[in-house]
Amino acid sequence: MKIALAQINTIVGDVDGNAQKALLFLKEAALKKADLVVFPELTLTGYPPEDLVLKAHFIDRNLEALRAFLPAVKGIVAVIGFVDRDKSGKLYNAAAVIAQGAIRQVYHKQALPNYSVFDEKRYFTPGDQAGLVKICGYKVGINICEDMWEDDGACATQARQGAELIINISCSPYEHNKLQVRQKLLQRRARAAGAPVVYVNLVGGQDELVFDGASMLVSPKGKVLAMGAQFKEELVVCDLAIGGGVAKTLSPLEEIFAAVVLGTKDYIQKSGFKKVLIGISGGIDSAFVAAVAVEAIGKENVTGISMPTRFNAEATKNDARRLARNLGIRFLELPIEKVFKENLGLLSEHFSKEPFGLAEENLQARIRGNLLMAFSNKFGWLVLTTGNKSEMATGYCTLYGDMSGGFAVIKDILKTQVYALSDFYNDRAGKDVIPRSIIKRAPSAELRHDQKDQDSLPPYSELDAILTLYIEDHFSKEAIVKKGFQAEMVSRVVSLVDRNEYKRRQSPPGVKISSRAFGKDWRLPIVNKYKG
Amino acid sequence: MKIALAQINTIVGDVDGNAQKALLFLKEAALKKADLVVFPELTLTGYPPEDLVLKAHFIDRNLEALRAFLPAVKGIVAVIGFVDRDKSGKLYNAAAVIAQGAIRQVYHKQALPNYSVFDEKRYFTPGDQAGLVKICGYKVGINICEDMWEDDGACATQARQGAELIINISCSPYEHNKLQVRQKLLQRRARAAGAPVVYVNLVGGQDELVFDGASMLVSPKGKVLAMGAQFKEELVVCDLAIGGGVAKTLSPLEEIFAAVVLGTKDYIQKSGFKKVLIGISGGIDSAFVAAVAVEAIGKENVTGISMPTRFNAEATKNDARRLARNLGIRFLELPIEKVFKENLGLLSEHFSKEPFGLAEENLQARIRGNLLMAFSNKFGWLVLTTGNKSEMATGYCTLYGDMSGGFAVIKDILKTQVYALSDFYNDRAGKDVIPRSIIKRAPSAELRHDQKDQDSLPPYSELDAILTLYIEDHFSKEAIVKKGFQAEMVSRVVSLVDRNEYKRRQSPPGVKISSRAFGKDWRLPIVNKYKG
Repeated sequence: MKIALAQINTIVGDVDGNAQKALLFLKEAALKKADLVVFPELTLTGYPPEDLVLKAHFIDRNLEALRAFLPAVKGIVAVIGFVDRDKSGKLYNAAAVIAQGAIRQVYHKQALPNYSVFDEKRYFTPGDQAGLVKICGYKVGINICEDMWEDDGACATQARQGAELIINISCSPYEHNKLQVRQKLLQRRARAAGAPVVYVNLVGGQDELVFDGASMLVSPKGKVLAMGAQFKEELVVCDLAIGGGVAKTLSPLEEIFAAVVLGTKDYIQKSGFKKVLIGISGGIDSAFVAAVAVEAIGKENVTGISMPTRFNAEATKNDARRLARNLGIRFLELPIEKVFKENLGLLSEHFSKEPFGLAEENLQARIRGNLLMAFSNKFGWLVLTTGNKSEMATGYCTLYGDMSGGFAVIKDILKTQVYALSDFYNDRAGKDVIPRSIIKRAPSAELRHDQKDQDSLPPYSELDAILTLYIEDHFSKEAIVKKGFQAEMVSRVVSLVDRNEYKRRQSPPGVKISSRAFGKDWRLPIVNKYKG
Repeated sequence: MKIALAQINTIVGDVDGNAQKALLFLKEAALKKADLVVFPELTLTGYPPEDLVLKAHFIDRNLEALRAFLPAVKGIVAVIGFVDRDKSGKLYNAAAVIAQGAIRQVYHKQALPNYSVFDEKRYFTPGDQAGLVKICGYKVGINICEDMWEDDGACATQARQGAELIINISCSPYEHNKLQVRQKLLQRRARAAGAPVVYVNLVGGQDELVFDGASMLVSPKGKVLAMGAQFKEELVVCDLAIGGGVAKTLSPLEEIFAAVVLGTKDYIQKSGFKKVLIGISGGIDSAFVAAVAVEAIGKENVTGISMPTRFNAEATKNDARRLARNLGIRFLELPIEKVFKENLGLLSEHFSKEPFGLAEENLQARIRGNLLMAFSNKFGWLVLTTGNKSEMATGYCTLYGDMSGGFAVIKDILKTQVYALSDFYNDRAGKDVIPRSIIKRAPSAELRHDQKDQDSLPPYSELDAILTLYIEDHFSKEAIVKKGFQAEMVSRVVSLVDRNEYKRRQSPPGVKISSRAFGKDWRLPIVNKYKG
């Protein structure tokens, strides 16, 4: 039996486009003599469709698309994801098994994830059918994503009921190291069932999520017989018994880089932009973001703008120019000193008794934000912001300043990871595309004389370790101190994270790469008196 | 039997503060000879605690606070809300019945709302106990919020099992007309149970939500025997058989006004601010927001700033001054023409071939946003934004411009409602505090010559009607057209709403007053190709 794993890149809400794409892949699978083609979870609606699902007309549209898809399924069996609705109006996250132009069976997802980034209990009713169906003479158990993650879920039941093949259609968002976890799970399930497991995962970016593909066929003994590439749309055709190609697994840094590039590319293109704009400071964050943008949509579509004031060192300004030259992007320089002075003059009547401080620092960042948005409005370029997770966590960033923009590329990447990724990027290029001087210079916002990040924050190596414990693991202050950090430092960091929730709430989305990103999986109140 | 309904204003995360406040109300109830005092749902954690609940140390803290509370409960019975945890680590939205310094019974909420603004299935396991307990000789059924809303839920079961009194502790967020719905529900439940119902609701603002109190005692025949005030912290002491005071119900406009004032006041004060700052344009939105701010925290704590350009008419500028004078607030004028020109000069090299357009319009709004934030940073004043729901819906507002600020007071109030509320406000004052000329002038953003809102948008009466159908009711375009609106206009409005999701995602929170506000109850994807 020949199986085609169609790890396609769908678009949320684009029901007709998704059906069209499924059709193309169906045809290719048929051309390659596949007996069965399998698509990811909620193929027709895209994932996650969120509150679109609450619109009755959206559900209608997806049901119409399913009906229109049926006649094309001839001489092959297809498993496709959609939203089903029963007579009472209840909705199900569903998989249709289609053969000879007709629906042979519909399975309703039983395990509805409602944690982390998932809200499926908001939308769907859990199913209760067995999900067993005959395909090409095999007794096949069909289930959907979370059904496989539950130890005694639908997958286990299907195995007990004699499934000779398990098919799981998924939309499993990427996070660092998740592929290994997923693979082990599939191997465990296959061995427990004594049956091969076919796993088809979505690929592509959707708002803050990116799906990494890497669909698999796992043998009853737990061997990965076939695997699709990570982060690439692909039709993986394999033989149920023999397997097929097994894509090479990316290294940890390659993986994060690929995730950020695809997440950024898809956000830009799926929201209809062709070009992007980045404020290039001469620092590491904007340098890495520019590199990601070039990788995602090509250097000809990226413009960098440097907007120096009196506080920007010559060395930094030169680095900004050098970076732009190395990347081959368009580069503009707009010194903002005069605009800054004009603003200060306007405020002087009211600020004269006050020393230069945060207001004047932020003002510079906000003038820059305004100019970027002026270009964005004028030419239709999307502004990419350059703040990293360490900054987003501690509020070491200016709301309506460097936080202004449509997509926050490295929002979930800690400062120490930005360094590692920049080194990786240069290594891969075989040259210092990101100038070494940028990587070596002590980080500074350059919003006042002789400012260094480390004047306000702990060293990044310690900061990032504390942030990970506090954010990803929900550790208390005491528990973090027990891990060997200084109590006062821990208190300061935790307090910074807590009191900057209001900034994060107004930040643009960015690619999730960690186990807990600031986004759907971080629902902390803004008004919050708990001192963790 | 004398019952005290303690509709208190808790603060999310402030476990010790909330316990302290409960203690004060407990003592007052005892002084007033109450046999029983009842607190709202999740008294100790505040509501909604959101992801704080995922922190094990936060749950510990709330359990410690409960234990510390016990000894104070002597000679009276108390029902108090907290998060319970069982030995396996499962969490429950719980009510403790306390008497003689000890917990007599713990009830776990069974119906966990996971729709609209609620995510309780993300956090809690549903309970399965009966919740019946003897208090002062009565067989009492204790249940929590949603348990009462389900037709065949815990409340009905308790009634069948012979409850002689039903107690429901709630955190039911305000929305327009909800009090009437709630009251009818309680009357239905009381009659069905043939028993009195005691209902205690939270009061106060929490981020985008505001809770309206109006706790009640309803007789077995469905008569409201006692009711607490709307939007006020209060201890309502009443006799189970005879009742007590019944607060006067607010009129529809009074109610919305009170909701917005309390929501704004609590956001300001609970997040630690004393003073606010508002950009006063001379238009109706900022005028009404300033009035709300004065009502919430007093005129001495409100500063208005007018920041005119060449496009602001003398009449508008005069209106801004007059409004400030009428309200008695501090008022500053910072003409931004020179800063605007300096920015235009900087951009001219790149924009010279382009006509004056959106970029230049938004630039003015963004210069204003920057100046407001400079004052905010310098003096620690919270910036209140002034955009209404019609603008938030259609994107007729500038991101990082007039959208800059910590709290969006009228974000859920349609333009037509802003007019109605302004009239109401003047009527109540017995004079035109908001100058009549502001109310009468055709609305304009004044970002270019002779601009009027109605150049870009349909008339507000039609726009608001279409928006209500699309946003609150999730109607399709066709369904809206069938209601009698012009197809082309409907298409335009729907498309504006859809494509401005990215702006709303970066907007500050504001008070929810409608059945669907832009916030927790509006989870639409940003990347979204569905054309509704």
